[in-house]
Amino acid sequence: MAEIVLLDDLEDPRLRDYVDLRDVQLRLRLEADRGLFLAEGEKVVRRAIESGHQPRSFLMSPRWLDGLADLLDASDVPCFVLDDASIEKLTGFHVHRGALAALQRPELASPQEVLADARRVIVMEDLADHTNVGGAFRAAAALGFDAVLLSPRCADPLYRRAIKVSMGSVFWLPYARVEDWYTAPDVLREAGFTTYAMTLAADSVPIDQVPHDVERLALIVGSEGHGLSPHWEKSADHRVTIPMAAGIDSLNVASSVAVACWELRSR
Amino acid sequence: MAEIVLLDDLEDPRLRDYVDLRDVQLRLRLEADRGLFLAEGEKVVRRAIESGHQPRSFLMSPRWLDGLADLLDASDVPCFVLDDASIEKLTGFHVHRGALAALQRPELASPQEVLADARRVIVMEDLADHTNVGGAFRAAAALGFDAVLLSPRCADPLYRRAIKVSMGSVFWLPYARVEDWYTAPDVLREAGFTTYAMTLAADSVPIDQVPHDVERLALIVGSEGHGLSPHWEKSADHRVTIPMAAGIDSLNVASSVAVACWELRSR
Ligand SMILES: C[S@@+](CC[C@H](N)C(=O)[O-])C[C@H]1O[C@@H](n2cnc3c(N)ncnc32)[C@H](O)[C@@H]1O
Ligand SMILES: C[S@@+](CC[C@H](N)C(=O)[O-])C[C@H]1O[C@@H](n2cnc3c(N)ncnc32)[C@H](O)[C@@H]1O
Repeated sequence: MAEIVLLDDLEDPRLRDYVDLRDVQLRLRLEADRGLFLAEGEKVVRRAIESGHQPRSFLMSPRWLDGLADLLDASDVPCFVLDDASIEKLTGFHVHRGALAALQRPELASPQEVLADARRVIVMEDLADHTNVGGAFRAAAALGFDAVLLSPRCADPLYRRAIKVSMGSVFWLPYARVEDWYTAPDVLREAGFTTYAMTLAADSVPIDQVPHDVERLALIVGSEGHGLSPHWEKSADHRVTIPMAAGIDSLNVASSVAVACWELRSR
Repeated sequence: MAEIVLLDDLEDPRLRDYVDLRDVQLRLRLEADRGLFLAEGEKVVRRAIESGHQPRSFLMSPRWLDGLADLLDASDVPCFVLDDASIEKLTGFHVHRGALAALQRPELASPQEVLADARRVIVMEDLADHTNVGGAFRAAAALGFDAVLLSPRCADPLYRRAIKVSMGSVFWLPYARVEDWYTAPDVLREAGFTTYAMTLAADSVPIDQVPHDVERLALIVGSEGHGLSPHWEKSADHRVTIPMAAGIDSLNVASSVAVACWELRSR
């Protein structure tokens, strides 16, 4: 059973996993260094633990103790209790649903491991926005894709905002980070995938012309500002586009993933 | 030509349209009271004005004057110039692309006017999140829908974040707010629309079974937390769903709009 620890000193070193949540850059560095990630809100904390992630500690205001009692009972890490105002002061932001957990960052599988059992994969190149990463995970999971590969610079799916927007799908949709991005097209090809670069290039094929019986299929999407890199555009087996109304720049990347996963669903 | 006004006093009353951008609730009240909205970033400011909105003033740091010179030349409202740090202090947040404009909030058309020329309409019931409103506008515009109706409590498309996420499509995709939400199904029916409630209800029809030749079609989406109201679920002509993988709660509402607009495109 989790030890309930009532605290009032915000300088207590045991709280250090929770400080300065507001500063994204600082957090990302700190969470990577310490091998942790944070879950925010009762529902997300629950999903994190139910999907097998190991808590290091909990932090909540008293009114959340009841709702999470089953998780706390089943755990042997401390649960720090502070009032809402102190939590806000400590973390630097308004914790919406006043419960947090710091969890052990899982060791990622290799791309080869993740691809071994997959048939439909989303590949994310350099997405910078955590909302988009989370949204793309959520859409891919909902619409039957079964794995994700990330480029070295793609934003972290275990960052608070990405977790939240993904509705926890980052906890169970398998993903891996490709270390050497230049060889990523080969990694996919060797694993038996046909690769489709999602692009706005004028000479790409409309996505409704992609056959539905491709055995193993990978969709590659590009960053919010610049889109896919020329290397990927050139190396993919096919280039596909979602035709749009005249005068429109592009779809949001998570929306484009939703449309593509829907269009390429098994049927 | 816009008068360039170098300022250093952040208390200057001419800057009042720009104070406290960080506090969403305060801003929404203030912008509604004063009949204004804000555009942020060179690109968005440009799109706002090119789509016919009237600026009341500009606020930027010196380095943006050149890039926006053509707009400033063509305008006769003041352009306030402050250094970046002062703009941050005034507005309460880091203005990413340090140019802002305060613009006249346009008078909205009536639902009847907006529906008159439309064939494909998205109806948003009580979306609370500006990112979702902006994302849904962007997807609807990109995928050929031609108007939007908002429920009385749906978040404001002209709020900064919604504008940005919509890539400016809120400036030109016609929309109206329905005052009496209870009669909205009738308003659509009288305008000749067949209404499709987007829902997760078990007895709804998969969206790929909707015929493609519906003359005038309205898709109704519900709020992030509770989904569509029972009133709308019951009053719509049809209830449709996007089938999802087992165990998934729902799609993000903007993603669901993207999938539905794609599936129901003219073809
Ligand atoms: C916001 S878009 C990037 C826009 C960028 N300015 C460009 O020209 O590529 C981000 C990513 O979403 C995907 N995407 C967006 N709209 C798309 C469409 N209509 N067809 C195919 N892919 C799309 C692409 O993978 C793209 O790289
Ligand atoms: C996040 S969902 C709401 C989820 C809510 N818990 C419910 O049970 O309806 C927000 C809106 O997106 C639309 N939506 C999301 N996923 C959908 C799906 N798979 N099929 C149809 N509509 C969907 C619906 O209009 C829904 O009201």
